[in-house]
Amino acid sequence: MINITLPDGSVRQYEKGTSAMDIAKSISEGLARNVLSAKVNGEVWDANRPIDQDSHVQLFTWNDKDGKMTFWHSSAHLLAEALEAVYPGIKFGTGPATENGFYYDVDLGEKTLSTEDFKKIEDKMLELARQKNTFDRKPISRNEALSYFKDKGDEYKIELIEKRGENEALTLYQQGGFVDLCKGPHLPDTGKIKAVKLLKVGGAYWQGDESRQQMTRVSAISFPKQKELTQYLHMLEEAKKRDHRKLGAELGLFMFSEKVGAGLPIWLPKGTALRTRLEDFLKKEQIKRGYQPVITPHIAKKDLYMTSGHYEKYGEDSFQPINTPREGEEFLLKPMNCPHHCEIYGHKPHSYKELPIRIAEFGTVYRYEQSGELHGLTRVRGFTQDDAHIFCTPDQVKDEFLNVLDLTMHVIRKLGFENFTAQISLRDPLNKEKYIGSDENWTKAEQAIIDATKEVGLETVTELGEAAFYGPKLDFMVKDALGRSWQLGTIQVDYNLPDRFELEYIGADNKTHRPVMIHRAPFGSMERFIGVLTEHCAGKFPLWLAPEQYIILPISEKFQSYAEDIQNQLAAHDIRGNIDSRNEKIGRKIRDAQVNKYPFMLIIGEKEVNENKISVRQSGQGDEGAGDMGSQSLDEFVTYFKTLL
Amino acid sequence: MINITLPDGSVRQYEKGTSAMDIAKSISEGLARNVLSAKVNGEVWDANRPIDQDSHVQLFTWNDKDGKMTFWHSSAHLLAEALEAVYPGIKFGTGPATENGFYYDVDLGEKTLSTEDFKKIEDKMLELARQKNTFDRKPISRNEALSYFKDKGDEYKIELIEKRGENEALTLYQQGGFVDLCKGPHLPDTGKIKAVKLLKVGGAYWQGDESRQQMTRVSAISFPKQKELTQYLHMLEEAKKRDHRKLGAELGLFMFSEKVGAGLPIWLPKGTALRTRLEDFLKKEQIKRGYQPVITPHIAKKDLYMTSGHYEKYGEDSFQPINTPREGEEFLLKPMNCPHHCEIYGHKPHSYKELPIRIAEFGTVYRYEQSGELHGLTRVRGFTQDDAHIFCTPDQVKDEFLNVLDLTMHVIRKLGFENFTAQISLRDPLNKEKYIGSDENWTKAEQAIIDATKEVGLETVTELGEAAFYGPKLDFMVKDALGRSWQLGTIQVDYNLPDRFELEYIGADNKTHRPVMIHRAPFGSMERFIGVLTEHCAGKFPLWLAPEQYIILPISEKFQSYAEDIQNQLAAHDIRGNIDSRNEKIGRKIRDAQVNKYPFMLIIGEKEVNENKISVRQSGQGDEGAGDMGSQSLDEFVTYFKTLL
Repeated sequence: MINITLPDGSVRQYEKGTSAMDIAKSISEGLARNVLSAKVNGEVWDANRPIDQDSHVQLFTWNDKDGKMTFWHSSAHLLAEALEAVYPGIKFGTGPATENGFYYDVDLGEKTLSTEDFKKIEDKMLELARQKNTFDRKPISRNEALSYFKDKGDEYKIELIEKRGENEALTLYQQGGFVDLCKGPHLPDTGKIKAVKLLKVGGAYWQGDESRQQMTRVSAISFPKQKELTQYLHMLEEAKKRDHRKLGAELGLFMFSEKVGAGLPIWLPKGTALRTRLEDFLKKEQIKRGYQPVITPHIAKKDLYMTSGHYEKYGEDSFQPINTPREGEEFLLKPMNCPHHCEIYGHKPHSYKELPIRIAEFGTVYRYEQSGELHGLTRVRGFTQDDAHIFCTPDQVKDEFLNVLDLTMHVIRKLGFENFTAQISLRDPLNKEKYIGSDENWTKAEQAIIDATKEVGLETVTELGEAAFYGPKLDFMVKDALGRSWQLGTIQVDYNLPDRFELEYIGADNKTHRPVMIHRAPFGSMERFIGVLTEHCAGKFPLWLAPEQYIILPISEKFQSYAEDIQNQLAAHDIRGNIDSRNEKIGRKIRDAQVNKYPFMLIIGEKEVNENKISVRQSGQGDEGAGDMGSQSLDEFVTYFKTLL
Repeated sequence: MINITLPDGSVRQYEKGTSAMDIAKSISEGLARNVLSAKVNGEVWDANRPIDQDSHVQLFTWNDKDGKMTFWHSSAHLLAEALEAVYPGIKFGTGPATENGFYYDVDLGEKTLSTEDFKKIEDKMLELARQKNTFDRKPISRNEALSYFKDKGDEYKIELIEKRGENEALTLYQQGGFVDLCKGPHLPDTGKIKAVKLLKVGGAYWQGDESRQQMTRVSAISFPKQKELTQYLHMLEEAKKRDHRKLGAELGLFMFSEKVGAGLPIWLPKGTALRTRLEDFLKKEQIKRGYQPVITPHIAKKDLYMTSGHYEKYGEDSFQPINTPREGEEFLLKPMNCPHHCEIYGHKPHSYKELPIRIAEFGTVYRYEQSGELHGLTRVRGFTQDDAHIFCTPDQVKDEFLNVLDLTMHVIRKLGFENFTAQISLRDPLNKEKYIGSDENWTKAEQAIIDATKEVGLETVTELGEAAFYGPKLDFMVKDALGRSWQLGTIQVDYNLPDRFELEYIGADNKTHRPVMIHRAPFGSMERFIGVLTEHCAGKFPLWLAPEQYIILPISEKFQSYAEDIQNQLAAHDIRGNIDSRNEKIGRKIRDAQVNKYPFMLIIGEKEVNENKISVRQSGQGDEGAGDMGSQSLDEFVTYFKTLL
């Protein structure tokens, strides 16, 4: 008998050679139906692979990231099997799972494949899936593997095998008639795969090397239920419409310029108005909570980053140092604000009575990213962090976490997000010597983070061993209206920089102490956050934040002065907007106003002027069109408007 | 007879060989007494140098910059004469006039000179001045000059002469027994110099070269009246007290860090509050006037500056390009915002109906300055311009100038400056081919600038030939409370960048046109402007702008909760301030509050709490101490406070 320890700490005894699937069955048949793979002593295994010794076992279903990965990886094999059936003789490169589905790179030889072929490939995949073929794992020697693929004539697999060590143990996996070189793990059988959709066909160089063969990359996704595929495809459609790059251009929020450079967003007037209003709102909330704004330069001497350790860590992959006409003088573009803030803390002596000191800056930083990784506002080379650094005593860590969580949850709700979670990253309790800072302070800080999240009722997952070497942290995640998860910012405890910058305060004991430093940028960056917000609200920003809250549409030029009068009266109520004075038909004006997603259209014609009223249309949420609210007096409108803020 | 044309265009006839002094006498004896030198056909001459041909003549008095330069340059010769009398046998380097006085670099040999010797040197200068010795100009050949200074044994003058061309005409000037190699011009006689003051003695390398002889630099100033010297010395004392570097540290406005780098100010919380409030005020005023704020990155690809021409012009003396891990990719730190704004204008087509488009940004730029030239906030390597670029039709230039002048004068008055002038720089009418842009547009723009300044009643001086090659401009100057002039920012017409960026609009004629671009940063930079403002108001900022408008001083800790109550009530009235809760004597608290220049101190003791009042002290302007306003109810104080905003 062997002992199997489950994640809840319970230990059960099984026969030697039992599998994760057997374990699942011993718990419940329902669970067993859903098990896709399992983590056995830290490694993800096939659910039906025999376990021969005492082990820690964690079962994975579709709800686990690792479960999805197994599902999609097996789907890639199924895709390959189908492709081989439809295009006999093609050769296979690699076929991994991705964050959203999977792909296989194949060499079609003389054959071609286009979106018109998708249906027949999908049909073949489903036909093979219905056969419920098991994925059979076969350990094999390097030579056996070589000989198999030489016989088959698949030069790409041969190249992959030749790169492996002489005595390395390899495995093949076979489902139905298809055999692949693969580490696994895989699903129990192909029958789990109930829905597949090919998404894209394109080119990709073998091994990512531009000098090698161009392969055909077939990308697809699969699900255990047809309904999930339908939902996913609808979400993709919706996401396309909400793409912040598309909306950003349509709404005139931001632009990119080839001459300025990729990944360097330029904020246009409407985007600037939006961003500035959001920053001002955040600033005000921070000042209420005792933050002190500062402004620091966007460059610093290399010395600063030698002291902080950033130069050593990021030097080569980053924007390179800036030389000057003076020999040996070097500056660096600021990749983070913390070293500057340490200099501010350190420029004068502090007493414990002054702590916590919260130094805040909407600081623009620059970090080099490969051009292929850039994406709209969410992956850029220059961005403005909602940054602050808190210098406090070890006993103040919990209150500071509470303060930051309160701020973040207040703001995130004000922006119309409802689904908000966090990951707490703690140290590896078995390797405490890897971390700097005293054991006492670590214990105190970790408990402070856990307690603070409980107190505010924030849903969290906790990961052991994921802390940075210099302190534990908390990462925020938000779910948008389409159910997609976005990583936002972080609260990070740091015992390292106060040491490197020799920061101090005089304690109540009249002795010198090191403050704890807390980095926090709960939204990460204004760029990323506005990108996510744009997609979340499909460009229909919360009324208080919208760059323009209304557009007045006069039916003819005759009503221009009445329109201006309305605009002035609204301005007196701090309601901001514009007049579409173009010489265009009202239908066109309404359509353009819809594209621009103004929260309100105020239409003015003969009747409205005579009755001293306005015709109000309110924009709906998400896909909804504009709701006609009929003719109203300005006072009625203003009263209604203010209930929405 | 020769024709003499005066600056007002009038032409008078004089005998050949007449001098500027003769011309002055022919106008009035009073004028003649004040004439120091004169510009003759574009060159500054001795007032009594004979004029032999038809000429344009402009007379200079103490009120002209050139007049002052002549005065101080002659004073440097007088200083040298006095030094030679006091220290026989010393050798002379160079002795120029400066912006504020003059100096002479001398080689004292074995002798030494300290501030204790100043009095006897000043006395000797005044004794020699009273002799009213004329400054006699003597043209001389290179060989004669060499032989004179070889006889005298003055190696520095010999080196200077040897650097001159073989056949170059040199001149000596002699007053009393002192002869110097000098181009002139000089005063009619030493008698004009009525007051002198030696200010400093220090070291300076010969020819600024660290490998050469160290000379002794004696710096001094002189005036035509004793009263002016007294005023100047008082101003120097006052300026020292108001030095923004000293006040910036005392008030906690900004700091510098060796690790971040010289010339890169770091704004501390109080300075940030001040600067942000000032920026927000300017932004609001600009938005009222139709500006559209944008935000652009602090770097751009080198391409952008190749297109704009800035790279070619500033390349070598600037911060050098930033390389990246990608071969051949180069970015530049942004030295100015205009190229970015051109990209914004150019990113979509424009109709004449949209013009003028006013793109505004508080844009932080970086320019390399030699470390020796850096000075507090007024000469830095990184600064934030109150920048905007206006794209308009040639016909809109005047209205845009009026708009900018209105904004600038409104703001400058709101900040407590009363003395505000401008220089208009026009093209050289005799060299029109040096300038780009059509003659018609230049004429229109120059007239527009002149007319606009007249319309708003702005005092100006006009300089021909001082325009940039790409357009005429206007520079703002402000006089501070000590009477010192500060150069602020500029409004600059530009026909060049629209060409280089191929900017266009569709005119009413349905054809494509180039817009005119106007650069404007009326205050230059936030850093410089806040530096000047700090010295102008001696750190006592206008009440609406002060980072903290009051400090509450409880006489004992018992009154803390009453103090907090007062603070909350004031906050409800948007009056911001703090409580000095330290366990210190009230006398100490008052002294510290004075150093921190809080506009109001609100003192709270037993009596105030019992009577539900506060004791108010208002800070005086300039040197004035705090005025005791006695015991008041909070309502009385708030009412009074609001009259001051």
